[in-house]
Amino acid sequence: MITFPYLSEIIRKNDYRIIMVVVDGLGGIPSPNTGLSELESAKIPNVDQLAQSSDCGLSTPVLPGITPGSGPGHLSLFGYDPIQHIIGRGALEAFGAGVTIKQGEIAARGNFCTIDGTGLITDRRAGRISTTDCQRLCTLLSSITIPQISIQVVPGEGHRFTIVFRGKDLSPDISSNDPQAVGTHPLTLVGFNKSSNSMIQIVNRFLDEAKELLCKEQHANMVLLRGFSSIPDIPSMATAYQLNPAAIAAYPMYRGLAQLIGMNVLPTGKTFQQEIQTLKDNYLDYDFFFLHYKDADTAGEDGDFKSKVKALEEFDRLIPELNALQPTVLAITGDHSTPSVMKGHSWHPVPFLIHSKYAIKGVTPTFSEKSCKSGSIGIIPAQHLMLSILAHADKLTKFGA
Amino acid sequence: MITFPYLSEIIRKNDYRIIMVVVDGLGGIPSPNTGLSELESAKIPNVDQLAQSSDCGLSTPVLPGITPGSGPGHLSLFGYDPIQHIIGRGALEAFGAGVTIKQGEIAARGNFCTIDGTGLITDRRAGRISTTDCQRLCTLLSSITIPQISIQVVPGEGHRFTIVFRGKDLSPDISSNDPQAVGTHPLTLVGFNKSSNSMIQIVNRFLDEAKELLCKEQHANMVLLRGFSSIPDIPSMATAYQLNPAAIAAYPMYRGLAQLIGMNVLPTGKTFQQEIQTLKDNYLDYDFFFLHYKDADTAGEDGDFKSKVKALEEFDRLIPELNALQPTVLAITGDHSTPSVMKGHSWHPVPFLIHSKYAIKGVTPTFSEKSCKSGSIGIIPAQHLMLSILAHADKLTKFGA
Repeated sequence: MITFPYLSEIIRKNDYRIIMVVVDGLGGIPSPNTGLSELESAKIPNVDQLAQSSDCGLSTPVLPGITPGSGPGHLSLFGYDPIQHIIGRGALEAFGAGVTIKQGEIAARGNFCTIDGTGLITDRRAGRISTTDCQRLCTLLSSITIPQISIQVVPGEGHRFTIVFRGKDLSPDISSNDPQAVGTHPLTLVGFNKSSNSMIQIVNRFLDEAKELLCKEQHANMVLLRGFSSIPDIPSMATAYQLNPAAIAAYPMYRGLAQLIGMNVLPTGKTFQQEIQTLKDNYLDYDFFFLHYKDADTAGEDGDFKSKVKALEEFDRLIPELNALQPTVLAITGDHSTPSVMKGHSWHPVPFLIHSKYAIKGVTPTFSEKSCKSGSIGIIPAQHLMLSILAHADKLTKFGA
Repeated sequence: MITFPYLSEIIRKNDYRIIMVVVDGLGGIPSPNTGLSELESAKIPNVDQLAQSSDCGLSTPVLPGITPGSGPGHLSLFGYDPIQHIIGRGALEAFGAGVTIKQGEIAARGNFCTIDGTGLITDRRAGRISTTDCQRLCTLLSSITIPQISIQVVPGEGHRFTIVFRGKDLSPDISSNDPQAVGTHPLTLVGFNKSSNSMIQIVNRFLDEAKELLCKEQHANMVLLRGFSSIPDIPSMATAYQLNPAAIAAYPMYRGLAQLIGMNVLPTGKTFQQEIQTLKDNYLDYDFFFLHYKDADTAGEDGDFKSKVKALEEFDRLIPELNALQPTVLAITGDHSTPSVMKGHSWHPVPFLIHSKYAIKGVTPTFSEKSCKSGSIGIIPAQHLMLSILAHADKLTKFGA
């Protein structure tokens, strides 16, 4: 898992506390109008001041040029090789829906769709039915019974849902029935190996019964399933780092991810202010805190430069509350860049700062893509960042005699 | 092959065009007289201007300290692991001689040499015979017939030639007969495995007949063969990247290399101006262009600092013609450094720029070794450069959910 094979030999448990704040979609690129990025445009005096007394740099989430999803982006930050550890679409959707899945259980992403009288798909999104309709239909699908198998159908937004299969002889190694196109029949499921035969039968039975149950619906008269996945076998970061880690995140997907790698997921509210309150309330009980700040990514995905600037400024205003806790290490970074001008995640390296008494201070005057590039650490793979953070908290001893 | 194992899942085909210009031997080190490198001494306003609005950095061809030949240098640039994919000396010589070799065919590098009456080598280069003599003797060797085997002997400069064996039961897994020393007999060929027995017999028969044919020559009365190699089994970059790539290179070796990895090699002239004309003439038919500029390397190899500066300035003058095509991505880099003061290839990281609308602009004022070191990308392995270039052309989608 973790990049350094001799980690267990050099880990040192102590009481020092680490706060790692992940500003989702932190990095950006310059606006064509001003030549300044979101971070360069935002007034973030508190973060800038932190940067001045921190080790700063840029982290590459996966490889140069590779744009990470949320899964690889976060796994890297926690020290996992994002190429070795892949979280399937279904499992990630389940996390996002707040559904806990365990080893041996299989999750998939579902779409309601429309088929015509001959079975051809005419709309892969069932006319984008309402979320209320989706909820009603998911309850309907939940009534399907397959011997020795328990099925959970969790409604999402509009035509989307998550399905979880629980029971014996399940396998994620089957193909999707979603042709990703209209004017064609749903695809026949294919198993990738012998052990997936039983899974094929289970899913086919579900699809047959779903089709029958939905046949009188005007739009949502069939379902498409894709991304069958189990939770990956990822070692616990609590064990690997000898930490007692807590995750504080408003969004279910990040809570699910944190749980998967052995963090204690703390109940919290929907705002970052509430997350910080949760941090304060639990500060004495854990030695590592992962705090997730979502708003920067949301604004970036919307292509709303001003809104991302504002999100960064709002984040900045709460920094004094983190400082007041006087953690041994306060690290601020992001899981990936989300440049507003690209309206989505990107591959650009992500700024980070590591504030501790061991930092080489006075190198980075402001917290931005360009100034962090020239920071005391420079550009490193994101999966190495956690080692630096542990080191700054005196949690790593000497390697080799 | 390519560094990122999930490439096929994230490649997106589109019509955007990439021009990658490889300035052979681009990088240099400072002249002891001025303290400035060739790039720092050259007046290259067009390239400097490009750098200002590009993502810049340095690429390490193989590993720090490792000086690449042309093969590894170029393979890295196209995204191949240069340690995993080795092109044998014989195959590279064949490419250099403009000879096409196919799977199953074996090429080797040959030297004419001088032996005395007892068979001891007295001169490994046959008194550096003239190229005209070499041509005459190669014609002579071409008359050698071995049942079911076709032999092609291609003259090079002076005492050098390339030999290609075509037919059944060939193998590259045999040793050289070149002891790399005088005062000793040519070595006995050794097979590295059972399947090379037949190859040993074929080459021994060739050597026996060559010795007989050449016995009346004053200097070139024997041959030494080394670097037996087949073309490596390298996956096609056209397939891996879903590109329709074209190579425009005046020198045969680079055309051969490009062909080996699945590029369409376009007929062109002997000058860079002619290469650019070829680019213009074919611009609508391909989505990736590899343009090779040789003169910087040639001057560097000659140890001619001024001439390398001049070559870079001549290159700069043609940049507006590339800009005028308005490619989605214009990348300029080199396959390795060739510092004039070292009179040869070196290990020094090589400057690069990636010009696109997604670049973090305004970081790099000029295009040089030092300024690119402080560029927005920093120092990366050369084999990752291609991923960045594809990303800038919107040809990579998100990795992981």
